[in-house]
Order: sequence, then structure tokens, then C-alpha cells
Amino acid sequence: MSERVAIIGAGSWGLGISHVLSQQDCSIKMWEFVAADLERLRQTRNNPDKLADFRLDERVQLTGDLEEAIADTNLIVLAVPAQFMRSVVRQIAAPLSQGRLLVNLAKGIEIGSLKRMSEVILEETGADPENIVTLSGPSHAEEVVKNTPTTVVAASISEKNATRVQELFSVGSFRVYQSDDITGVELGGSLKNIVAIAAGIADGLGMGDNTKGALITRGLAEILRLGLALGARAETFAGLSGLGDLVTTCFSRHSRNRFVGEQIGKGRKLDDILAGMKMVAEGVQTTRSGRELAGRHGVEMPITEEMYQVMFNGRAVDEAAANLMGRELKAEFWN
Amino acid sequence: MSERVAIIGAGSWGLGISHVLSQQDCSIKMWEFVAADLERLRQTRNNPDKLADFRLDERVQLTGDLEEAIADTNLIVLAVPAQFMRSVVRQIAAPLSQGRLLVNLAKGIEIGSLKRMSEVILEETGADPENIVTLSGPSHAEEVVKNTPTTVVAASISEKNATRVQELFSVGSFRVYQSDDITGVELGGSLKNIVAIAAGIADGLGMGDNTKGALITRGLAEILRLGLALGARAETFAGLSGLGDLVTTCFSRHSRNRFVGEQIGKGRKLDDILAGMKMVAEGVQTTRSGRELAGRHGVEMPITEEMYQVMFNGRAVDEAAANLMGRELKAEFWN
Repeated sequence: MSERVAIIGAGSWGLGISHVLSQQDCSIKMWEFVAADLERLRQTRNNPDKLADFRLDERVQLTGDLEEAIADTNLIVLAVPAQFMRSVVRQIAAPLSQGRLLVNLAKGIEIGSLKRMSEVILEETGADPENIVTLSGPSHAEEVVKNTPTTVVAASISEKNATRVQELFSVGSFRVYQSDDITGVELGGSLKNIVAIAAGIADGLGMGDNTKGALITRGLAEILRLGLALGARAETFAGLSGLGDLVTTCFSRHSRNRFVGEQIGKGRKLDDILAGMKMVAEGVQTTRSGRELAGRHGVEMPITEEMYQVMFNGRAVDEAAANLMGRELKAEFWN
Repeated sequence: MSERVAIIGAGSWGLGISHVLSQQDCSIKMWEFVAADLERLRQTRNNPDKLADFRLDERVQLTGDLEEAIADTNLIVLAVPAQFMRSVVRQIAAPLSQGRLLVNLAKGIEIGSLKRMSEVILEETGADPENIVTLSGPSHAEEVVKNTPTTVVAASISEKNATRVQELFSVGSFRVYQSDDITGVELGGSLKNIVAIAAGIADGLGMGDNTKGALITRGLAEILRLGLALGARAETFAGLSGLGDLVTTCFSRHSRNRFVGEQIGKGRKLDDILAGMKMVAEGVQTTRSGRELAGRHGVEMPITEEMYQVMFNGRAVDEAAANLMGRELKAEFWN
């Protein structure tokens, strides 16, 4: 069966995933909210503010009308920023609930509700939970469109639907594995952005690879602690959407979250950094929601706590670094 | 009690660890086998071939005589390349067996015997196993001597001796955690060098961070499989001497093993690459011994296998990459 796909959101990953799907036998419609971005894509088939050196396949139909985008489709790719997910799916709740496969690409935890993306989508649409698949893993769009070998995970409680996504999205150098732990996959993809900000601060302060190796290790440990408290499986965090995405985000020059941290480390103010960016750094909001989630479940997340204090409470980065390094000498696994 | 330390080996990590110990109240003697290197250190207190921008503390006494080096010491730091460990400790087996604390810094698995470093040291000296501590983790010497925040693990079956090493080696920005899983710590530190060569090949081929995120994830999975088969604990590989050391080695410009892979990826021959290096890339030999160990225990290690075929059997890197990417689509954790 040839799939009829709608991609909701023409940010960098929306554009990147269109490159993957354009290699398959499927129809693709793409929706974008920002009129200027939509017009630019219509005229030039590209938006260099979101993704340089890329040209949208001619067969992709562009629209600014959500209902038109999803009309006559059976698979919806949701690629909007995490904090906008609820407002977008709310507008098309009824058609999304009618048996379409919903593929979530957003990485984040909603402020306020502290819900993961699939939870937000389910809550708004009332869709069958079996029809939601989250695709996550180390997959910077800038590399995917250059056919850099990339591997991700399709997670769903439905093996049938995970397989359907795996088969549709596996093309050439883009490979999709499967997981049934959607909770772990979504948490790994979201929480790693907090650690990426910390890694960026280490970069901005001129610290080295030894420091980042330590940050990633301790960062994965605190992500794992929260994940286990929320019912995820430990092995998921050792996989592509945990460890894999974490290391790529912490080292890649393409990572917006690492960039935000680097600028903080160099002494710039968060508001100024964000004002100068044309893309969303999900980790800034995830630091707030992740910290609140940890507090609610009584989970210790020292890196998340320090990032929160630095970004939202005026703590100096030197003090945060000293707090993380100065913890009492002890066994590596103390909990 | 003020420790009386001998550092055996003045390679980059031997010099690097002297920077750490020079900040403590202890006496330090340092032995080096290569006469020209020893003379250079005596005259200039440095050896830029091993470690740039570094000056050996004036209090460190240099010697080319092994017995003189360890005379009147109570703590021996073994910092020789893995494949030379046996021949070095054999020469001082008797004094090493007499209650001295032996701190192993070498990372590798001996060709032929397929033994870890602490096993080689024990076999040659007959020392009490409680007296061996292995120090491992993401700790490139180039960064340690610049006081970059660095964390490592001291592993021993003796908590008392792990604590003694932890207290002696923890200074300023160098922090030491403890572990009782010396098997896991040594395997993690050794086997990561194989994955680092693969990461270097990806760099040399112009692949990106997505690819390296995937390689690190699948690499840690195969290291874990072998570790579990050899009696190590899973959590050790999620720690500093597993994941932490792995990510640092795979991304750092200071990694010799990553460098070897990068040169292979650019089309150079292994022999030519090694002939041009002034330092040892442990991962080349560990690929041989690690592969043999995996075969003996029936453990599947696809990255290790491909690295072996590339380095020792003439397989083209493109073919190796295709083999790793082309594996049948399946669940992320299939074993």
C-alpha cells in the first residue's frame, strides 16, 4: 500500500524527514504555520534559516491550511516544536482520531502539564494509543539530507505500527530500529537536550573532552533515574534514543541546545541568545519541565538542577560547574 | 601517611599522572625505558613527542633503572603500553609482590594470553589481588595537565585500597570515583579503543555526528555483551570507564586510536600510519585480542569484526561500513 503522508511543520526536521520520505513511493503534503516561511518554500523550495543546502522535492505539496494538509492522508508526521504540539493537534483533533497513523518527531516535555508528546497528542485527539509512533534518535537534519548514515528508533505500543513506520522511513543511509518503550524513547530524546546545554557551557568555558565525557556519563545516569521512576525500561537509555542521541547532541556543531549552552558559557544572557536564534532550542523549556517532573517524583538530577539555576535563577556558570565537580567523593553508582 | 610513588613509564599518561600526583604530598620517582626519551626529560623536563606544553615537576626523580625506580617506594603506578606490561613487571616481580600498592593505568588486552592488565600483573608477580587498583576513565593527558575538569574510576576488589588511590589521586579538577568491578573497568577502558578506530574511519570518510552517535551506541552494546560474558557488571559500562571513556575517545582530537581510524578512512595503509606515530595506539592490538576473546566466548561483536577485517585482512572501509549499516532491520535490543 502506498502511504499518503502529511508532514505538519516545515522546520529543519520537518524538511529533513521530507528528504527521507521523498525516496519512497508515497504522496507528501507539508503544512507550515509561519506564512513567510511557507511563501519562501513555495518560491524557492528551500528555507536556509531552517536548513541550508537543501531543496524540497517537487512532489511535496505545500499548504498553510491544516485541514487541507491532512485531507485524504493516512499518516501524519507531527514535526512542530514541543510547546506548540497541543495547540496544533487540537485544531485537527477529530480527523486525527479517525484511524490515521500519527508519527511524532517532537522532543520535549510540555510546560505545565509535564506530559510527553504522545501523551499530549492522545489527550487532545482521543486517538487509539496503538496509532501513535514516536521516531527519535541521533538525526540532525543537516546530515540526513546529505545522506550521512543515520539510525533512529520507531517506538510504539503497537508492533504492527512500529513496523509500518520502520518500513516506510528506512531508505538508503537512513535506518530505523524498533522499540516498544515509547515512554523511554520520548524521555531520552527530550531530556538529553538539558545535558546538551551543560555540554555547551563546558565548551564555552573552554573545558575539554574529558569534561564532556564525564557530563554525558552523569547526564545519562540522571536521565535513567527519572526514566525508571516514570516506568521506562533501562535498556532504552543505552540505545539510540538515549545514549546515541545524547552523545551526538553534546558534540555536534549542528545542535541548537549545545549552541545555547556554549553562548551562556561565553557570558551571554539567555534572552539575548534566544532572540538571535531562528530555530527553537527545545532544551531550554525542557529544563523547566524536566526539573519539575524530577521534583514531583523525588528524583535527584544535579545537572538539570544546575542548568535550571543558571538559566532561570541567575546562578553563575562557574558556581554551577563547581557544584557539579565538588560533590563528595564516592562510589560511581551510589543509588 | 605520605606515599612514596614510582611511575613506571614516561609516555603521555605517565607524564600526565605525574602532574596530578605532584599536587599531593608524596615523593615521585619516574622510570623510562627509552634512553633518548629519558635524557630529553632530564635535560628539558619535557618530551613534546609525548605531551606538548608540559613541564615535569622538579621534584620528580628520573631513572632508567627499574629496581632503582621502585626502591623505597610503597605505591607503583604502571603506565607502560599494554603489550609491554608483562615484560616490564617480570623484571621487578619480587619487589612488586611484597605488599606495594600497584596502580595500573594501561588499557588493553594482551595478545596471545587474552588477559586483562591486572591479570597479567598478578600472574607475573604473584601479588595479593587486593593490592591491585586500575585507574580508568575519560582522561586525555593533554587536558589533565591543563587542569580541565576530569573524572576517573579507581577499581579494586579491595575497598580500602580503592579508597587509598581515590584519596591520593583526587586533586583540584581531577576527581576519582570508586568501583569494585575491576573486570568491567578494565574491559571498558580497553575495548572502547576498537570503537574509536571505527569512529575515526567515519570521520575519515566524511560521515557525520549522526553516524558517530550510532556507532557509539552499537559499540557500547557489543562491549557490554563481551563484558557480561566475562563476569563484569552491566552498570560499569554505563559509567566513566565505559560510556564516558568511549564518547571522549570517539570524539576527541587527542585520541590516537580515533586518529588511526581517520587515516585509514582517508585511504592510508595501517603500517604507514603506525610508522609515522610517536605514540602507541592500543586499539590496533586490542582489535586482535578483543576479537579472539569474543570468538572464544561466542559473543557477537560486529564492529570489532569489521575493524579486524579492515586492519588485518584488507577489507575496504566502504564494504565494512555497508556491512554495519546493512544489517537486517530489527528491534533495537535483539539479544
